[in-house]
Amino acid sequence: MNVRAIIYILGWILNMEGAFMLLPFIVSLLYGEQEGIAFLLVAVLCILIGTLTVLKKPRNMVFFEKEGFVTVAFSWIMLSIFGALPFCINGDIPNFTDALFETVSGFTTTGASILTNIEAMSRCGLFWRSFTNWVGGMGVLVFLLAIMPLTKGGSPIHLLRAESPGPSVERLLPKVQNTALILYVMYFVLSLAEFILLILGKMPAFDAITAVFGTAGTGGFAVRNASFADYSPYIQWVVAVFMMLFGVNFGMYFLLYLKKWGKAVRFEEARYYFLIIIAATVIIFFNIYPVENSIESTLRHAFFQVSSIITTTGFATINFDLWPAASKAILVTLMFVGACAGSTGGGMKVSRIMILFKTVKKELMIQIHPGSVKKIKAEGKMVNHEVQRSINVFFVAYILIFIASVLLLSFENQDLVTTFTAVAATLNDVGPGMAAVGPSGNFSFFSPFSKYVLMFDMLAGRLELYPMLMIFHLGMWRFSLGPAMKRRVTRIKNINSRG
Amino acid sequence: MNVRAIIYILGWILNMEGAFMLLPFIVSLLYGEQEGIAFLLVAVLCILIGTLTVLKKPRNMVFFEKEGFVTVAFSWIMLSIFGALPFCINGDIPNFTDALFETVSGFTTTGASILTNIEAMSRCGLFWRSFTNWVGGMGVLVFLLAIMPLTKGGSPIHLLRAESPGPSVERLLPKVQNTALILYVMYFVLSLAEFILLILGKMPAFDAITAVFGTAGTGGFAVRNASFADYSPYIQWVVAVFMMLFGVNFGMYFLLYLKKWGKAVRFEEARYYFLIIIAATVIIFFNIYPVENSIESTLRHAFFQVSSIITTTGFATINFDLWPAASKAILVTLMFVGACAGSTGGGMKVSRIMILFKTVKKELMIQIHPGSVKKIKAEGKMVNHEVQRSINVFFVAYILIFIASVLLLSFENQDLVTTFTAVAATLNDVGPGMAAVGPSGNFSFFSPFSKYVLMFDMLAGRLELYPMLMIFHLGMWRFSLGPAMKRRVTRIKNINSRG
Repeated sequence: MNVRAIIYILGWILNMEGAFMLLPFIVSLLYGEQEGIAFLLVAVLCILIGTLTVLKKPRNMVFFEKEGFVTVAFSWIMLSIFGALPFCINGDIPNFTDALFETVSGFTTTGASILTNIEAMSRCGLFWRSFTNWVGGMGVLVFLLAIMPLTKGGSPIHLLRAESPGPSVERLLPKVQNTALILYVMYFVLSLAEFILLILGKMPAFDAITAVFGTAGTGGFAVRNASFADYSPYIQWVVAVFMMLFGVNFGMYFLLYLKKWGKAVRFEEARYYFLIIIAATVIIFFNIYPVENSIESTLRHAFFQVSSIITTTGFATINFDLWPAASKAILVTLMFVGACAGSTGGGMKVSRIMILFKTVKKELMIQIHPGSVKKIKAEGKMVNHEVQRSINVFFVAYILIFIASVLLLSFENQDLVTTFTAVAATLNDVGPGMAAVGPSGNFSFFSPFSKYVLMFDMLAGRLELYPMLMIFHLGMWRFSLGPAMKRRVTRIKNINSRG
Repeated sequence: MNVRAIIYILGWILNMEGAFMLLPFIVSLLYGEQEGIAFLLVAVLCILIGTLTVLKKPRNMVFFEKEGFVTVAFSWIMLSIFGALPFCINGDIPNFTDALFETVSGFTTTGASILTNIEAMSRCGLFWRSFTNWVGGMGVLVFLLAIMPLTKGGSPIHLLRAESPGPSVERLLPKVQNTALILYVMYFVLSLAEFILLILGKMPAFDAITAVFGTAGTGGFAVRNASFADYSPYIQWVVAVFMMLFGVNFGMYFLLYLKKWGKAVRFEEARYYFLIIIAATVIIFFNIYPVENSIESTLRHAFFQVSSIITTTGFATINFDLWPAASKAILVTLMFVGACAGSTGGGMKVSRIMILFKTVKKELMIQIHPGSVKKIKAEGKMVNHEVQRSINVFFVAYILIFIASVLLLSFENQDLVTTFTAVAATLNDVGPGMAAVGPSGNFSFFSPFSKYVLMFDMLAGRLELYPMLMIFHLGMWRFSLGPAMKRRVTRIKNINSRG
């Protein structure tokens, strides 16, 4: 394990976070808020520690898979801890666990909140909270990769892979740095387009920019207690459409940019993604039509909620916890499906679900004709056995973490629907669940223990399990320990294997 | 597809069912009940149709995997339809869908009931209902294999495999027929032991014999409305212990019979099985102790319910729906875990869960050290890739069927906990769930549509998915269709592949 290289990168991450924190400080100046001082203070602290760490660049910057995972896991934990400090200092969220929960929820683009009154928060605090959604969406290491060359030898692709969602991360361009850059350019352009359309709809600039942060990162932090229920139908339509667009694999946008229209249209994952959205919207439309007023509003609410939940954004125009059971069951299912791989959305990803269905179909054929060799194709290419196995195991691990979290939470919470959907909404990085954690509720009532379990779920969901599971894996650390520690670990292992 | 051989075996199954139905008829004579005539009538009908079908034995009795699956699926559907007729005729359950539900629930050893007042039923009806639990537990084709040689060439192991639970069904003895016979002998001896112990506890003979049927088959049909709450602590302890024993892999009992003590003690699946039971009992003990009276009764209720649920029996000594959320969440989790492979229990089976955990651990190691070759062992033997893949896919298919069923049911039922646990309790062949389908509730309020979905789940769960999935699979039928039909199917397939 190349510990020095990892610490060096963590240093740069901290510098970056310090720079980002100057934005909410500027916002506080615009609105004349004294809460902004906290952001300046912590920014200085971050840059101080960060600069001291990166003073000397390690000669060996070789990076492999395991370094990628560890760097990503620690980056996100560190970002969240420092990101939470301003909230504690300026009194926006005095309790540290709560502030950490809110920040983890922000960076992981979950959007689950412990705030009971969002509008009571300072403007700079709200800005920072939404900005974490935007940064977390495309990824912090991807951002760092886009602006500077980090590694030498090995390959920085491991950093990109460990942070980017989806079963197989492709380089769009031969150089990883260029791939990271092009991803952020597309991300910025789409964000800008949404911002302009919202401003044209006469949305206040502050609301519009935070809405864009929440939409683009599929985060879902809103600046109003009613989320998006109070905005005009036009604004709701724009946000619904853009949520859907940010859930599409960015590889498809790159194909469009390259004017490879045919290839873009044949993008299998995106086709299933749109198909699921249409099907879910239609079913929910007919399911809720009897309780709604007009066709337009029924369609708008159905589409908005479907788009919001499948992309794991979590904005709401209506309290869908009051909808009939079928609509609620569909929404909870969509939470697990998630958006496309290579998008900013969470969940298991459409491509994984697609390949899982294909493996089940293949297994049936094998049972009927043993010895027959069946192959699975996705995006027109053969899916090799390694990827199939890895997706199957991912699914198993996902469900196991889900069950373990529900069990842990149920010791402190009596309502099973609340517990179940709270875990579903955090592990899939959605935000709101049902019942007590529904669109009109929040996560404040959970005990600190439950909150830490949910924070783990948010991070595990956003980083696709492995980075978070690995930091708990003993075998991972053997290689980086000193000889004395190594001997102790070996001793412990021997004892275990004997028992 | 060897259709003639399949029909021939179905004929024998029907003969066997006819013979079985003479038992409730005898019971009706003992109690002087006129409801028994219905069983005699249907028995005659079964034997008539059965005998006509088996008059001429097909020359070609070669059997392969696909014939095994199809035979098993149709056997169980046919058994349930004919088994339901007496209930309709004698007025015990006038509605056919309800009678079918009860019979499917019986044969699949689920134990979910639509009866609102069990004690109002005739004695012969109650006997038949419980007897289906006993026959379904070890399997109807296994029974048939035990008493007569069915196939010639190919191998009857496919029949045994298709009906027996677990990822890999081993022959205990070189000949399949002897394996089937020894399984039923062990089953009978264990049942007899329980019966004697219950009689020693002064349980009425009728209650004792039906209790044995429900325990041995891990079915869970009781003859009292209060299930096992009214019986003495001694009886409750005996039943709790025997439920646990019937959830153990019968291969272990065979090792004990062969006096291979060392091998039996090292039986990995059984060790995990007992470990889970102990852990769950201890946690629930401490969770419910504050609301219970004494240590003995707390321990008894905790152990009884854990043993009942993990073996997917479904007996109850208490309304566990009123327990704290953690205990309920543990019980629902145990429903999915299920008993050991090669037992009479349902669920996913401990060995599958055990191997799933090992594949997740292996995947983590592969992510840390790509290229490293890790192997998975179970029961001291290497688990090959085929079996690993098949278990992973089984898990995926299981969860997909679960989700699809919950979605379908949620269109008609508003309480998500009821819907969720009703599907969990039927797909895992447990019986009672929580809320409206809890130990004090029943399944009568579901619509016919919901009931058929749940019947499918019970059959899919008991037969471990594939037989039930296959009868819906078009590719399965191609080989047995006439040339005209074949052309049509090919045309449909071409159209699909073009689209």
